[in-house]
Amino acid sequence: MKLLSFKYNGETLFGPKVKREDAVWDVLALADQYEQTQFPKTIVEGIASGLDFVEKIRKMVERAEQEDNVQYKYAFTEIEWLSPIPRTPKNILCVGKNYLDHATEMGDEAPPEKLMIFTKSPTTIAADEQDLPIHNDVTENLDYEGELAVVIGKEGRNIPTQLAYDHIFGYTIANDITARDIQTAHGQFFLGKSLDESCPMGPYLVTKDEIPNPNDLAIVTKVNDEVRQSSQTDLMIYKIEDILAEVSRFVTLEPGDVILTGTPAGVGKGMNPPAFLKEGDTVKISIEGIGTLSNRFVKV
Amino acid sequence: MKLLSFKYNGETLFGPKVKREDAVWDVLALADQYEQTQFPKTIVEGIASGLDFVEKIRKMVERAEQEDNVQYKYAFTEIEWLSPIPRTPKNILCVGKNYLDHATEMGDEAPPEKLMIFTKSPTTIAADEQDLPIHNDVTENLDYEGELAVVIGKEGRNIPTQLAYDHIFGYTIANDITARDIQTAHGQFFLGKSLDESCPMGPYLVTKDEIPNPNDLAIVTKVNDEVRQSSQTDLMIYKIEDILAEVSRFVTLEPGDVILTGTPAGVGKGMNPPAFLKEGDTVKISIEGIGTLSNRFVKV
Repeated sequence: MKLLSFKYNGETLFGPKVKREDAVWDVLALADQYEQTQFPKTIVEGIASGLDFVEKIRKMVERAEQEDNVQYKYAFTEIEWLSPIPRTPKNILCVGKNYLDHATEMGDEAPPEKLMIFTKSPTTIAADEQDLPIHNDVTENLDYEGELAVVIGKEGRNIPTQLAYDHIFGYTIANDITARDIQTAHGQFFLGKSLDESCPMGPYLVTKDEIPNPNDLAIVTKVNDEVRQSSQTDLMIYKIEDILAEVSRFVTLEPGDVILTGTPAGVGKGMNPPAFLKEGDTVKISIEGIGTLSNRFVKV
Repeated sequence: MKLLSFKYNGETLFGPKVKREDAVWDVLALADQYEQTQFPKTIVEGIASGLDFVEKIRKMVERAEQEDNVQYKYAFTEIEWLSPIPRTPKNILCVGKNYLDHATEMGDEAPPEKLMIFTKSPTTIAADEQDLPIHNDVTENLDYEGELAVVIGKEGRNIPTQLAYDHIFGYTIANDITARDIQTAHGQFFLGKSLDESCPMGPYLVTKDEIPNPNDLAIVTKVNDEVRQSSQTDLMIYKIEDILAEVSRFVTLEPGDVILTGTPAGVGKGMNPPAFLKEGDTVKISIEGIGTLSNRFVKV
């Protein structure tokens, strides 16, 4: 199932993409009609509500399809897209230097010996197709990082690798936009990683059943249609299950938490000469089985 | 006004300390009785609701005092204390090395050239008097850091220093508990700073009107009644208004956000030989005008 969050007539809603159509089911309206009382009002609430959240949606959509209930099916042209998770319960967790070739392009001799985690403020979250600020009042070194994002489904601490997938709800695409100058000058990564709207995510949150092996997906980042990053998630140093196990040794993971799994080689800073983002640039990140996240950078 | 959050009969409540008594007013019960409909259910909701939140509480308490309405006054012996802000809207923001003598005791020749910000997960939040885990399954280097914490009252980006105090709601005390080995080994500070319950805060959230100059408060940390840190917030390199101005150049601050302003010299790692926390230790942090935050460390 491909879930999305969106605005329609001023209301913040969510639902699954309609199969073979550029449209979405309004799950809250269906729940109302089919008397699913107390249905979760957001995807994060739904994830937290437990295992049968997706199953309930599936059944309502089946019934809507059978009854050809087009009333609660909105064309993509009618909605404003949001990030599938418009607000995470804690900062977005990000793995640093999880691809060898990215670590070396950043000037390191080797990847970090232990898992490196930094965070991005939830105020960084933005949507697919949203115009994003180039932030040239504070940085001249804005850079892209295409990444596979994991969405946590179930709370956990000390999660064993064997049970990691029990704690995953699904996957989306993220651009871990980074002000390189601020990242370096301020000692810790947080500030340079947390400019407003510097973490677009989407377009879909794809449930884990549709992605049998997230550790082997093609990932491609283009800037203005020029391929900059072209890699495969099997090159990740920490696999998805290793990341969940290692992070949860220290930090309790919660439903709706998002973990960005690191970026492969090909970021602007790694080029010779470096090529940072400019006003008018469009960055498109595609991940096999999920789709394409596209954002244009503008002066605001 | 000294606000606290607490549990009473299983319910999560909040209210101001009763003057000259070890007791708290149950603000939600007063609001019910005095027909303040739609009164905020938590301190963070109240802060976000706007300027007259504190004034409304003040008026209800005045009336309760006049009417000697003891029904909604609970003795401290009857309640379970919570952190005044049990859950922050984003990770707790922390200033690194904001006292020269702490930077040097950590082995640095000079403090960072630019403001250093790292974060702690909101799952680290704990209460005054709460027993905290010593975490000896993952660290042997658990350390304390007594700090003045600022609670944001009003959303802001690019806040000028002159207007910083307009964006502050009040102050509390925090212990920025840190696993030094994890902090160092994992490259970025986040994991070593984010062990569960490694950020006790309290006992009170003191509204800003009671602390005319937060840049000149005595701060003392004791471990088992031995003074380890004894300093004054006028030694902070970045003053409160500088921190708000600089952080908000990059990150939008939101009502209920908490910023830890850094720790003075005297942490366990800085001692010769280093003296980390042990099972059974009690850490007490006192800040002038706020009170004392006390926690014992236990094996769990």
